[in-house]
Amino acid sequence: METPTITEPRWRIEATRPVSYEVRLCQDLFDHSNDQLVTAGAEDVLPSRRRLIVVDARVHALFRERLRGYLDARGMSYRLCVLETTEPAKTMDAVFRVLSAMDDFGLSRRREPVLAIGGGVLTDIVGLAASMYRRSTPYVRVPTTLIGMVDAGIGSKTGVNFNRHKNRLGSYHPGAVTLIDPAFLAALPARHLRNGLAEVLKMALIRDRGLFRLLAADGSRLVTERMQSRGSADDGAAAQTVMRLAIDGMLKELQPNLWEQRLDRIVDYGHTFSPTLEMRALPELLHGEAVAVDMALSLVLARRRGMLTDDELTGARTVLANLGLPEWHPVCRPALLAEALADTVRHRDGRQLIPLTEGIGRARFVDDVTVAELTAALAELRPAAGAAGDGAA
Amino acid sequence: METPTITEPRWRIEATRPVSYEVRLCQDLFDHSNDQLVTAGAEDVLPSRRRLIVVDARVHALFRERLRGYLDARGMSYRLCVLETTEPAKTMDAVFRVLSAMDDFGLSRRREPVLAIGGGVLTDIVGLAASMYRRSTPYVRVPTTLIGMVDAGIGSKTGVNFNRHKNRLGSYHPGAVTLIDPAFLAALPARHLRNGLAEVLKMALIRDRGLFRLLAADGSRLVTERMQSRGSADDGAAAQTVMRLAIDGMLKELQPNLWEQRLDRIVDYGHTFSPTLEMRALPELLHGEAVAVDMALSLVLARRRGMLTDDELTGARTVLANLGLPEWHPVCRPALLAEALADTVRHRDGRQLIPLTEGIGRARFVDDVTVAELTAALAELRPAAGAAGDGAA
Ligand SMILES: NC(=O)c1ccc[n+]([C@@H]2O[C@H](COP(=O)([O-])OP(=O)(O)OC[C@H]3O[C@@H](n4cnc5c(N)ncnc54)[C@H](O)[C@@H]3O)[C@@H](O)[C@H]2O)c1
Ligand SMILES: NC(=O)c1ccc[n+]([C@@H]2O[C@H](COP(=O)([O-])OP(=O)(O)OC[C@H]3O[C@@H](n4cnc5c(N)ncnc54)[C@H](O)[C@@H]3O)[C@@H](O)[C@H]2O)c1
Repeated sequence: METPTITEPRWRIEATRPVSYEVRLCQDLFDHSNDQLVTAGAEDVLPSRRRLIVVDARVHALFRERLRGYLDARGMSYRLCVLETTEPAKTMDAVFRVLSAMDDFGLSRRREPVLAIGGGVLTDIVGLAASMYRRSTPYVRVPTTLIGMVDAGIGSKTGVNFNRHKNRLGSYHPGAVTLIDPAFLAALPARHLRNGLAEVLKMALIRDRGLFRLLAADGSRLVTERMQSRGSADDGAAAQTVMRLAIDGMLKELQPNLWEQRLDRIVDYGHTFSPTLEMRALPELLHGEAVAVDMALSLVLARRRGMLTDDELTGARTVLANLGLPEWHPVCRPALLAEALADTVRHRDGRQLIPLTEGIGRARFVDDVTVAELTAALAELRPAAGAAGDGAA
Repeated sequence: METPTITEPRWRIEATRPVSYEVRLCQDLFDHSNDQLVTAGAEDVLPSRRRLIVVDARVHALFRERLRGYLDARGMSYRLCVLETTEPAKTMDAVFRVLSAMDDFGLSRRREPVLAIGGGVLTDIVGLAASMYRRSTPYVRVPTTLIGMVDAGIGSKTGVNFNRHKNRLGSYHPGAVTLIDPAFLAALPARHLRNGLAEVLKMALIRDRGLFRLLAADGSRLVTERMQSRGSADDGAAAQTVMRLAIDGMLKELQPNLWEQRLDRIVDYGHTFSPTLEMRALPELLHGEAVAVDMALSLVLARRRGMLTDDELTGARTVLANLGLPEWHPVCRPALLAEALADTVRHRDGRQLIPLTEGIGRARFVDDVTVAELTAALAELRPAAGAAGDGAA
């Protein structure tokens, strides 16, 4: 048992908070014989059959029958809280809706984990509510988008937008368990699948050349087939490998730095300018699309610094194009990028710490990017006049 | 470097979050040669002279000149955010006021700790805002009430009320440094000093017989003298010892269980029924007063179970009386106590885990208190008809 160090009149209190959570790839979550959904997060305690379930409105519309059929078959007593989730509605108001539902439900703190079923917007909102309610309440994540499965639903961060700033409010509070059933992706619009592949491409560019090769070879097919095995040209082999490598890479990067004590995070690749871009372009750019624009910029910056060859730059931009991801958006003006960088520097404790690729599959931090450099890089990416939608200068 | 355990398709992520903070007894905080206030929480980093200071409105009215004089003399560039703090206003609205101030100020994440100067209401609000802003931002606490100095300002909990539930929303986010200058207490109304002594008495009853003796001997003098040395009969000897023992005892109890992973917390003594009592009696009962009512009830419960002698019960009730603390309030009806207990049981994972005194200076948990027992104990505490203000049945 630790005791505080006392050299009166001073006391130093030191402690370590243990955190442990699980991410599981699974299938047939709604199969009536599958008990994962009703036991997850409550394996070690007295079973309770009560659950509060917060579910994305679109997912609810698509999967309501199967979800209810499953819960009824398992004899659960539950309440559904259906949440409209759009990026502009990712605010504290949504968090309050979840908090009120939790309070009305009379949640028993550790025996009745809240179930969060939806994309990154939903799990980020529920995660923040769960971290605040009674100073932390367990929850279980069931990501239903690709971004959720490889990123938002498996890390420790929660958050909502505030004052037009991306994820300005939040906490570190991972769900006790994350259940990943890729079958949800069958229903996902292609644009959202591409959006998730942007985060997968990020992992590939900074740490996994093999994953990059898979995306280069099979990227557009993964979109068309929605990463499903059924009806796939290779029985889902590529989809499954991509999913595992993406999750595995992300967790390996997150674990040693779960609370971002260290500010040099290569997973911040593509996230230097994108938070501001995404908020300014709302609702035009999805999260992964804003990340794609940031990655395109980062690739050109790397090439200009000799950290990528011409071939590598072309190869990476080709994958972006094949995945149908944007490289530019009319809000991309030097002044806005400078503003985005200044905000990120505040977040990174006064340093730029911009991860850039050093060849494909490796990253290194730079700390001295100038506005002139950004302006020059932008010029390489901006479509020729007439080609872009609004020809913005 | 830890890596996640992988037995695909499962990953377990395990990590420990280190937390460290300091509590310092100090004096003359506003003395122009004292740099503690401007360096606290930023000792290890590049100095920044910018500070956002959130201050209790009453404290601001009383100490504005000295605070501004000090900051100006130290060459600080600062913004003051003055907050009305009352228990009914301890809500998310107040948290949002602080969050907006933080965002407007353009806070640099780790170099500009927010200064929180005020009582427990203020530090709880600022602590929650700081934990949410960019998923955690450092802050420094300067408690100005006795409750703040021995309890609210030195632990890790933050919180606000929600849906009429006491501290229903919150986080664990201790300030990097707490600076305790007992001189603030000279301005504190007697009732608030008594209120703080209720929490000191709690520590005495559950873990420190010596502290109990001090309170029995000098309790009412400590109130009159506001725990100041100047003009005190013993040059502040008793006040200083009480302050140190109270802080020391609290920190020793908190440290091994900073995140309340264990639910058997003796510091929850007096906090089984009081959260509901306090909220129902608002604004009539202060926090420590509600705790005093709960302690009186707990003392009688302990006596009825043979865990206290008659003399011990009388001795403890005499100290409560000498400190001018209440033993009863008209909202204390059996039905309300039953409701309060049910809510606490939800918080304690389905168990009562009620700490009761076993003699003076020791505690033990009981798990089987009945409503009949509560009703009988209440009857011993309720003033005779006519004696109580409203003669409530
Ligand atoms: N916490 C983190 O570490 C982290 C990491 C990355 C991204 N994020 C956040 O995640 C969010 C983006 O996540 P997202 O892309 O999942 O967005 P999203 O949650 O808005 O989902 C995208 C759309 O797909 C719909 N949808 C969800 N599942 C579906 C399904 N199976 N079939 C059909 N439609 C479905 C949703 O209703 C929504 O309209 C951003 O707010 C971003 O900030 C968080
Ligand atoms: N976080 C924790 O672990 C913890 C522990 C115990 C209590 N609390 C919380 O603390 C709160 C009670 O704290 P409190 O009693 O300090 O209440 P408070 O903050 O409301 O302060 C009491 C009153 O004293 C005024 N005041 C403050 N300093 C003064 C000074 N030096 N001179 C004159 N007036 C002054 C305030 O304006 C207020 O009117 C409750 O909300 C309770 O839930 C929290």
